[in-house]
Amino acid sequence: MRHIDTQTRLCAVIGNPIEHSLSPAIHNAAYDALGINFVYLAFRVEDLGGALAGMRSLENFRGMSITIPHKLEAIKYVDEIARVDRHIGSINTVVNEGGRLIGSNTDGPGALKALSDAGADCGKSNILILGAGGVARAIAFTLAMKADPSEIALLDIDNKVLAALACDLEKSTDIPIRSAAMSENTLAGFMERADVVIHCTPVGMHPHTGESVVPADMFRPGQVVFDVVYTPLETKLLADAASRGALTISGVEMFIGQAVLQFERFTGADAPVDVMRKVVMEHLRS
Amino acid sequence: MRHIDTQTRLCAVIGNPIEHSLSPAIHNAAYDALGINFVYLAFRVEDLGGALAGMRSLENFRGMSITIPHKLEAIKYVDEIARVDRHIGSINTVVNEGGRLIGSNTDGPGALKALSDAGADCGKSNILILGAGGVARAIAFTLAMKADPSEIALLDIDNKVLAALACDLEKSTDIPIRSAAMSENTLAGFMERADVVIHCTPVGMHPHTGESVVPADMFRPGQVVFDVVYTPLETKLLADAASRGALTISGVEMFIGQAVLQFERFTGADAPVDVMRKVVMEHLRS
Repeated sequence: MRHIDTQTRLCAVIGNPIEHSLSPAIHNAAYDALGINFVYLAFRVEDLGGALAGMRSLENFRGMSITIPHKLEAIKYVDEIARVDRHIGSINTVVNEGGRLIGSNTDGPGALKALSDAGADCGKSNILILGAGGVARAIAFTLAMKADPSEIALLDIDNKVLAALACDLEKSTDIPIRSAAMSENTLAGFMERADVVIHCTPVGMHPHTGESVVPADMFRPGQVVFDVVYTPLETKLLADAASRGALTISGVEMFIGQAVLQFERFTGADAPVDVMRKVVMEHLRS
Repeated sequence: MRHIDTQTRLCAVIGNPIEHSLSPAIHNAAYDALGINFVYLAFRVEDLGGALAGMRSLENFRGMSITIPHKLEAIKYVDEIARVDRHIGSINTVVNEGGRLIGSNTDGPGALKALSDAGADCGKSNILILGAGGVARAIAFTLAMKADPSEIALLDIDNKVLAALACDLEKSTDIPIRSAAMSENTLAGFMERADVVIHCTPVGMHPHTGESVVPADMFRPGQVVFDVVYTPLETKLLADAASRGALTISGVEMFIGQAVLQFERFTGADAPVDVMRKVVMEHLRS
């Protein structure tokens, strides 16, 4: 039996809906593995301001994971966030430091960790990011500010979103940015230059598992291909890339990576990564 | 291992200080005994308004026990309380009904349950309450509104507190109220009339276990004597009463009773009273 007493600290994921979140299973398994005095719950939340006021006032409420639809608005209610996360414009993590709420985003660092754990070096590389939405933004800013790539290229079908991200990256970093409206032509040209391809659109996600934004013959040996989609674990895009000799990385590694980083920010302990990966894999395969 | 998932509901005690609260041990043992999907934590709270705003916003935050110093102020932040609890002027229980906070006080009903479980009938009885503070107020109003006693007599050394409680009881109930400043004379007269004596002052509480407000020779066989003090489990007042043939009830039964009623309001399930009593007794004896 998990021991709970007056010292037990609470972490929780908030969002709406929340009932399918894997976070309680992942984090509680990690607490059990290390025998630390935390418990992790899930709360459906509509009034985000009230939820964060509660966290601030409840001393043992240590950490919060924030998911859809609250990741953008949450920035309004925290006391401090890092510069990179202010550029990203959304947070998924809040740590309560004695009533002071520190916001951060572990999506980008989770992606970076997934890439480096797989042996992919983004430094001095040409990065191609497909899609320019929230996840693309988190990954692009993290790579631009922490990984020293040679260039970051962006493709999206939505020119407004694309231009906004490209412009924000140019204003706040020194990394060369290229961007173009997504078409078969632009894709072919950008794919040829790319050392690392990061797919950040929902295409290929269950149940549309037969779709991919990249024709198979555009991949080549030596390329690193990372798909943030992780249902299924091997998307058509990743299968095509692997068949052409590319090094492929599933989005599940980013999902695990962001949870690992949250765990470490909440607890201060080294995360039992294998335990957390096992929980995720068991859920995804069931 | 306790199973926790996205459906797990949170209850918690809030107060300041909170680290010595028995409530997490009592309630979690009860959840485990019934196998219900709740967890009970403790939060030190300074900003009560923030804590209750948080409860309202966090959908799975089902129940709150409120302890010192927040029992009076909490009334300001709930949406609904029963008439008896408004008269008492303090609450120790909040239930979250889909964002609507229902406040109540289980101290008085806990005392009434302790009395009736011990076979003491307060109906048509002369009740004497020693002390007129917060606990006395909760018990006096609960008895006046729910137990139909013949009279309630009040004694206290603080005339202002005494007059306020006597006046409030007279205004809001039809039960005859008698009150007097506490002295050996008034005590002797009131003790002679009393069928049920309820001691609500801190006298005799650990470490001052040799003290009692009632001389031993004032007790008599057939009297019911209830002491809200429960450290020690048998106070000098209860030992003296027992030695004169009175039926004695320890305050620990009220403490258990209020927790049992909170458990039932939070969960909707019948409380495993023996499990809860065992946890309390183990802690008090250790």
